[in-house]
Amino acid sequence: MDIWAGIVGEFFGTAILVLFGGGVCAAITLNKSKAQGAGWIAIAFGWGFGVLAGAYMAFPLSGGHINPAVTLGLAFSTGDFSKVPTYIPAQVIGAMFGAFLVWLTYLGQFRSSPGPFLSIFSTEPEIRKSGQNLATEIIATFSLVFVIVITGAYRELQASGTGVLIVALLVVGIGLSLGGPTGYAINPARDLGPRVVHQLLPIEGKQTSDWAYSWVPVVGPLLGGAIGGVVGGVVLSIV
Amino acid sequence: MDIWAGIVGEFFGTAILVLFGGGVCAAITLNKSKAQGAGWIAIAFGWGFGVLAGAYMAFPLSGGHINPAVTLGLAFSTGDFSKVPTYIPAQVIGAMFGAFLVWLTYLGQFRSSPGPFLSIFSTEPEIRKSGQNLATEIIATFSLVFVIVITGAYRELQASGTGVLIVALLVVGIGLSLGGPTGYAINPARDLGPRVVHQLLPIEGKQTSDWAYSWVPVVGPLLGGAIGGVVGGVVLSIV
Amino acid sequence: MDIWAGIVGEFFGTAILVLFGGGVCAAITLNKSKAQGAGWIAIAFGWGFGVLAGAYMAFPLSGGHINPAVTLGLAFSTGDFSKVPTYIPAQVIGAMFGAFLVWLTYLGQFRSSPGPFLSIFSTEPEIRKSGQNLATEIIATFSLVFVIVITGAYRELQASGTGVLIVALLVVGIGLSLGGPTGYAINPARDLGPRVVHQLLPIEGKQTSDWAYSWVPVVGPLLGGAIGGVVGGVVLSIV
Amino acid sequence: MDIWAGIVGEFFGTAILVLFGGGVCAAITLNKSKAQGAGWIAIAFGWGFGVLAGAYMAFPLSGGHINPAVTLGLAFSTGDFSKVPTYIPAQVIGAMFGAFLVWLTYLGQFRSSPGPFLSIFSTEPEIRKSGQNLATEIIATFSLVFVIVITGAYRELQASGTGVLIVALLVVGIGLSLGGPTGYAINPARDLGPRVVHQLLPIEGKQTSDWAYSWVPVVGPLLGGAIGGVVGGVVLSIV
Repeated sequence: MDIWAGIVGEFFGTAILVLFGGGVCAAITLNKSKAQGAGWIAIAFGWGFGVLAGAYMAFPLSGGHINPAVTLGLAFSTGDFSKVPTYIPAQVIGAMFGAFLVWLTYLGQFRSSPGPFLSIFSTEPEIRKSGQNLATEIIATFSLVFVIVITGAYRELQASGTGVLIVALLVVGIGLSLGGPTGYAINPARDLGPRVVHQLLPIEGKQTSDWAYSWVPVVGPLLGGAIGGVVGGVVLSIV
Repeated sequence: MDIWAGIVGEFFGTAILVLFGGGVCAAITLNKSKAQGAGWIAIAFGWGFGVLAGAYMAFPLSGGHINPAVTLGLAFSTGDFSKVPTYIPAQVIGAMFGAFLVWLTYLGQFRSSPGPFLSIFSTEPEIRKSGQNLATEIIATFSLVFVIVITGAYRELQASGTGVLIVALLVVGIGLSLGGPTGYAINPARDLGPRVVHQLLPIEGKQTSDWAYSWVPVVGPLLGGAIGGVVGGVVLSIV
Repeated sequence: MDIWAGIVGEFFGTAILVLFGGGVCAAITLNKSKAQGAGWIAIAFGWGFGVLAGAYMAFPLSGGHINPAVTLGLAFSTGDFSKVPTYIPAQVIGAMFGAFLVWLTYLGQFRSSPGPFLSIFSTEPEIRKSGQNLATEIIATFSLVFVIVITGAYRELQASGTGVLIVALLVVGIGLSLGGPTGYAINPARDLGPRVVHQLLPIEGKQTSDWAYSWVPVVGPLLGGAIGGVVGGVVLSIV
Repeated sequence: MDIWAGIVGEFFGTAILVLFGGGVCAAITLNKSKAQGAGWIAIAFGWGFGVLAGAYMAFPLSGGHINPAVTLGLAFSTGDFSKVPTYIPAQVIGAMFGAFLVWLTYLGQFRSSPGPFLSIFSTEPEIRKSGQNLATEIIATFSLVFVIVITGAYRELQASGTGVLIVALLVVGIGLSLGGPTGYAINPARDLGPRVVHQLLPIEGKQTSDWAYSWVPVVGPLLGGAIGGVVGGVVLSIV
């Protein structure tokens, strides 16, 4: 794959992921939205189908990582780190663009709601304890990356798209099952990029961007992805 | 593909789409319906599975566009506009037929409910501001058409049907994530055709067909589809 | 396919369909069930995944019709009526066995609930008007059979199973969108077989089996399936 | 397949299954979880997508049984019992590890909730009657294993992953439809392993591990799986 194809794919793919994911959070929580109050199942399916849309679109261009933890995990499992320096910046900037589009899509709703709005952009824990929050993010991201590494979903099932579909539903499952404590970042770009946008956008009533917590949904997923890549690589090598 | 296969496929496909989509809106909102109050998730899945049924059926006949924004976007991405003059009228007339079938299916329920009924036929915004509503429809439709153009879902995955399934779930995602402000037309035929039928049918208590808003869910999706086709075509050409 | 493979496949496939479908109705409505009150979305997905389980299992044996309306529709579209006399009895008897298993599965819950219980076995309309109820069942069944006939889902996609999956999700969509007025029999065996079982089983508080309505969910789906087969056959022949 | 590949696949696959399944039970029931109160549909999809993640991951290593009832059923259908002595212990130990991870993921939530917590680890019947509970588990597990045996989902559809996806959705269906009375163990490892962990972990307020009931969700699924394997084998042999 050409280097520009990779960058373009990861940029647009992550933008679409965050547009859908941030969008469903806006749809559920803001006033004057038809989906207000649709609940956690809508959140989980909205983010999962965001993965579906973004990864399916990006797949023929970049392999459809749309997540630094996946890029890092695949690098650790294969020993090839060449994609890391181009993919991860493209993912973060794409996530920022996606968050900007969420704001544009729900502009009137933002203006009709009192805030705070951070939960539409980035994750916040229910119980703020760094160690516990890290553990939750590591376990959830490990589940994702380990499965991807073992199955090679992003490589071998291209023809049918079924691999992308299964990974997207797996993300729905992570949301339902492991999202309760921290809101499941499981993707540093998806959390960091929109947090920057939340800081920059002039939204009335937005309140704090909570930078004190911001390192957890970056470090946790990166660690979980790296562990998933290493363990997955070991499993693949011994069997 | 033969020109008549295209017309027949788009007519029936769009009719089935609107039958399912309008049907779920009727099911959720009308009195004496077993699904009354099932909420936004039912709406999103009902429309998405309408896309699945209609596009899957139409695929072998016409390629399964069932949406003028998709037809226009694919035309812009390929430079071949030959399908536009036959597909779009077939889609609009099919959507009208589908809306008529919704009324027939729920005849007793319409008679048992006080109205208004426009939301069963066509979209209405939560906050009426043309610029914002247009932006929302453009962004949502762009997401759909851009993904279709890049992946060629409607062309290459015919054998397995997986492409159609993924696009249908993508539409579920758009509903959950981007449908809050305007009810996501993302398809001019799906909105205009049923609005005409709403105007014509003798339904007691139906109230206004809201023609003042009707241009937004036509122009917005057409713009979003065209932009999706152009940007998608550029991305495909440079990578 | 061997004649016995067809009979065995249709018997077990329809039994599993009704076990799942009747099961979810029991799960939602009976006392002392963990799923009580889960609502219409659970109903629609429960029946749809019953189609998935039954048709997927039966596919390699019989083609996975598990519905007399499908058998009749395919016969009309192909002109080959040879499967009708063996498949339809196997479907009805299978549906009876499935309904019996629902009762066994939820025995304690039946005994803890006051009744009536007919809605766990067979469909009942919200508004009792034969003409309207027939129209609803004809339209809903037409949608199902027409799509199956055009796509040949039950024939060509055997290798991947995707065709069965799409048809199952289509049935979820019919439930969400067209099930409101009559509870969507769309399958004479699914309605008639369990109604006989409801009549025969000694369930306290079960009340009437409502034989006055019972012809509608038999005749409506058969008509809808036949029309779907004829129209589908015409469409396939001219394109 | 190598014996170690089988053990490793079954260990990790069952761990992921229980991590997702136990996770969704924790997410729904514990205090300070974002998914609290999401209801039975979330439970059914969470467990089903746990099957998807675990079986999809384990498939290339072990065939993705992740359930002693499946292993036993396939052994009865083929006459080859060679996998039983390695797979079943790996499944039980994997399930224990998964339950431990659930506790780690939701550590703060466990500490913020009063208990009891057994329903997060193992199944409990709504009405405690051994005969009825056994019958429910046998019927539900038979449905699963019989379909798997007939379709050979775990063998022939490897290339596309569609077989694993269908079986996962089938498990969603079992949850919605047949889970009401007992909470659908349908998998001895998924019930026994976490029950041991519940006994061992020092969780405040956890109350009884209910060993009096523990044999039902082991014996029932094993019987259901064995019957599914025998009947499935007979069906396959005569058609």
